[in-house]
Amino acid sequence: MKPGIPKGTRDFSPTEVAKRNYIFESIKKVFEIYGYVPIETPVMENLSTLTGKYGEEGEKLLFKILNNGDFLAKANTEALDQKNSTALISSISDRGLRYDLTVPFARYVTMHLNDIHFPFKRYQIQQVWRADRPQRGRYREFYQCDVDVIGSDSLMYEAELVKIFDEVFSDLGLGVTIKVNNRKILYGIAETCGIEESFHDMTSSIDKLDKLGQEGVIDDLVKKGIDLAIAKEILDILKIKSLDDLELRITKSEVGLTGIAELRTFHKYLDLIKTNNKLELDLSLARGLNYYTGCIIEVVSNDVKIGSIGGGGRYDDLTGVFGLKDVSGVGISFGAARIYDVMEELNLFPENIGEKLKVLLIALDDSSHLYAFECLSQLRKAGISADLYPDPVKLNKQMKYANALHVPYTILIGSEEKESGLLGLKDMKSGEQQKMKISDIISTLL
Amino acid sequence: MKPGIPKGTRDFSPTEVAKRNYIFESIKKVFEIYGYVPIETPVMENLSTLTGKYGEEGEKLLFKILNNGDFLAKANTEALDQKNSTALISSISDRGLRYDLTVPFARYVTMHLNDIHFPFKRYQIQQVWRADRPQRGRYREFYQCDVDVIGSDSLMYEAELVKIFDEVFSDLGLGVTIKVNNRKILYGIAETCGIEESFHDMTSSIDKLDKLGQEGVIDDLVKKGIDLAIAKEILDILKIKSLDDLELRITKSEVGLTGIAELRTFHKYLDLIKTNNKLELDLSLARGLNYYTGCIIEVVSNDVKIGSIGGGGRYDDLTGVFGLKDVSGVGISFGAARIYDVMEELNLFPENIGEKLKVLLIALDDSSHLYAFECLSQLRKAGISADLYPDPVKLNKQMKYANALHVPYTILIGSEEKESGLLGLKDMKSGEQQKMKISDIISTLL
Repeated sequence: MKPGIPKGTRDFSPTEVAKRNYIFESIKKVFEIYGYVPIETPVMENLSTLTGKYGEEGEKLLFKILNNGDFLAKANTEALDQKNSTALISSISDRGLRYDLTVPFARYVTMHLNDIHFPFKRYQIQQVWRADRPQRGRYREFYQCDVDVIGSDSLMYEAELVKIFDEVFSDLGLGVTIKVNNRKILYGIAETCGIEESFHDMTSSIDKLDKLGQEGVIDDLVKKGIDLAIAKEILDILKIKSLDDLELRITKSEVGLTGIAELRTFHKYLDLIKTNNKLELDLSLARGLNYYTGCIIEVVSNDVKIGSIGGGGRYDDLTGVFGLKDVSGVGISFGAARIYDVMEELNLFPENIGEKLKVLLIALDDSSHLYAFECLSQLRKAGISADLYPDPVKLNKQMKYANALHVPYTILIGSEEKESGLLGLKDMKSGEQQKMKISDIISTLL
Repeated sequence: MKPGIPKGTRDFSPTEVAKRNYIFESIKKVFEIYGYVPIETPVMENLSTLTGKYGEEGEKLLFKILNNGDFLAKANTEALDQKNSTALISSISDRGLRYDLTVPFARYVTMHLNDIHFPFKRYQIQQVWRADRPQRGRYREFYQCDVDVIGSDSLMYEAELVKIFDEVFSDLGLGVTIKVNNRKILYGIAETCGIEESFHDMTSSIDKLDKLGQEGVIDDLVKKGIDLAIAKEILDILKIKSLDDLELRITKSEVGLTGIAELRTFHKYLDLIKTNNKLELDLSLARGLNYYTGCIIEVVSNDVKIGSIGGGGRYDDLTGVFGLKDVSGVGISFGAARIYDVMEELNLFPENIGEKLKVLLIALDDSSHLYAFECLSQLRKAGISADLYPDPVKLNKQMKYANALHVPYTILIGSEEKESGLLGLKDMKSGEQQKMKISDIISTLL
């Protein structure tokens, strides 16, 4: 039998694990300096927790787990008779795989309310599953990396999260542009144009600006029943680059003015601490997700065209669906897979990442092998990542293994070395070799 | 709706994540010093990879994922008509959740043969899922923590892995006993007693010695059709404590003598480097899994009765089922959940684990709040985990938050502090307060 793995999933090799962890460690370090704490939730959630949260499209992408045992015994017989798969599901599946980290977080907060102190600042780096059509850069199993603060509506947090983006991407060596907007401003534009009842249609069209271009978005708006003149007016407003100019344009919309005031407060905080990367007001930024209600943020790489590598925003009601009302929050998410691809393309990972083995010992005969094992133990005790080839086979074969592992040093041990205690430390890059006592080798390699 | 999580799964709070990661980090550090590298495999595997690997009992415990879309369209109609759940599965489910890390590792090796250099030393710390009946300490979703070396039959690795157990448990502060045996010796005992055809029956009975006691195991053996006299003889041999005595007893079994020779070579390595913890020959150690073929190892806590907290052994054919023959390997596994419980019971986790926030800033009015945000940024830039309460509300409320977070320091900032630049750093434990410049606070807290 020839083994394979499910479509859209991946094995991670040692180097790939090291690179991914390099990104996660950089992110976690910043999260913790900013006072965020980690939680983890189960991979399996009750289907009742997941359904009704991701819209009709998302619902189709949920992976469902078949009930164990004789699941047909409790199956909906009508659905079975009609061969109606959709109607059958709820009677044969009680659980599904996590689709995102937002809904499990809302569930967590609702369930653990007594152990939580607001504002609650949490981060969560775990995998999610979506039965999407796999394609380049899109997987069915992938990591999400979310950081949120809930239980406060202070705009200080919007500034803090933008600064977290700024700092993480600086640490990773990635030049980015951080775009900000506010959903209230978008509503203000809709109101100003007299189409507030088409607000969601408008934002979903604007969201495609990158893909469709100006004309395409105008067509899209008209297709949704919006007047051509109004569509053009909207696109015109979206080009505005300053809050002062915008204020004059949407001055009759109270909601829009609130959005502007929020961005001004946000800037008041951010101006005090500055960012390394460019911060940009982008009125055409809409964020597809309708649960955002305030500031929205998106990050793009300055050097690689790959779409957003991070994003987030303010939401007014995360936990309402679980019965906990009026909990405002704001959060951002790092697009780990895309960040990985950008860093790979720009060659930003440290050289030799994941190659932690510092030295390979090579023994030439049985009794040297036992002696080498003793030396090995001393190196390891000193905290040096070291190994010994398992058998005293031909030097050639052992050297081939050392090269395959890219180990920077080898130590050759034969009967002469065993007797004198002077071992040959070889720098594999330069080829230079030095005779040294094990204690001196330890000091050299530490 | 009142949310819950599936039976047998858990949420991990920030403290629980910190404690679990403390264990994992200790383990990983040792793995890497010993030259092992990490891999990760998908949570979902093809059912064809998983089925036929875990015996009839294990098979029932596999979680299967329902195919997406109109899964009934391709369902086995005969099985549907007969309402035969078991027969239906393969036609409506192509994937399952990972049941252990061993089978995915064997699949990984077979698939990535061109990128692997033997001996291949890998570790893997990931979750697995089993539809077991949940009970205290047994979950349906839990972490496994495996380390294996494959592609060599050198007994040096058995010694190395025992030393890894020894070192990890020493680092964690846990006193343990490491028990060793060899499946070939057990076979030798069966052969000596003339019941080699009942070898698996014998080992599975011996495996229950802890639970059933001497008499119970004798009963169990007799129930399996073994003569009472022979059953008694077996139990008698199992009490032997030295290899020399054993050698005299099973001297006619060639396989048994090979087992003894293997343990002697193993000891030749281990004697050179010593262990901190007690190493014990335990002939009654059998390890339930039949794929072990050589040395077997098990670790128990000296202080808490909870069963084994680690175990492993040598297997001669890991990848044969995937078409790759003659790959010998040896590996061990850490029982992360039990180690966690033992450490909790013995109070071995560092104090304040997971509480990384060092200082909370408290502002008394709006303009001080902006100034505090600036100070906050300086603390964070210096790498100090710091936070600011989001609003300048009543001192009382902010202090309550500081106490809830167990933060060791607070900094109080009002208009006076803003003007003078002298901030009050308060040690929350002693209650002492000192007026200092932000630069001096940074040096104090670093």
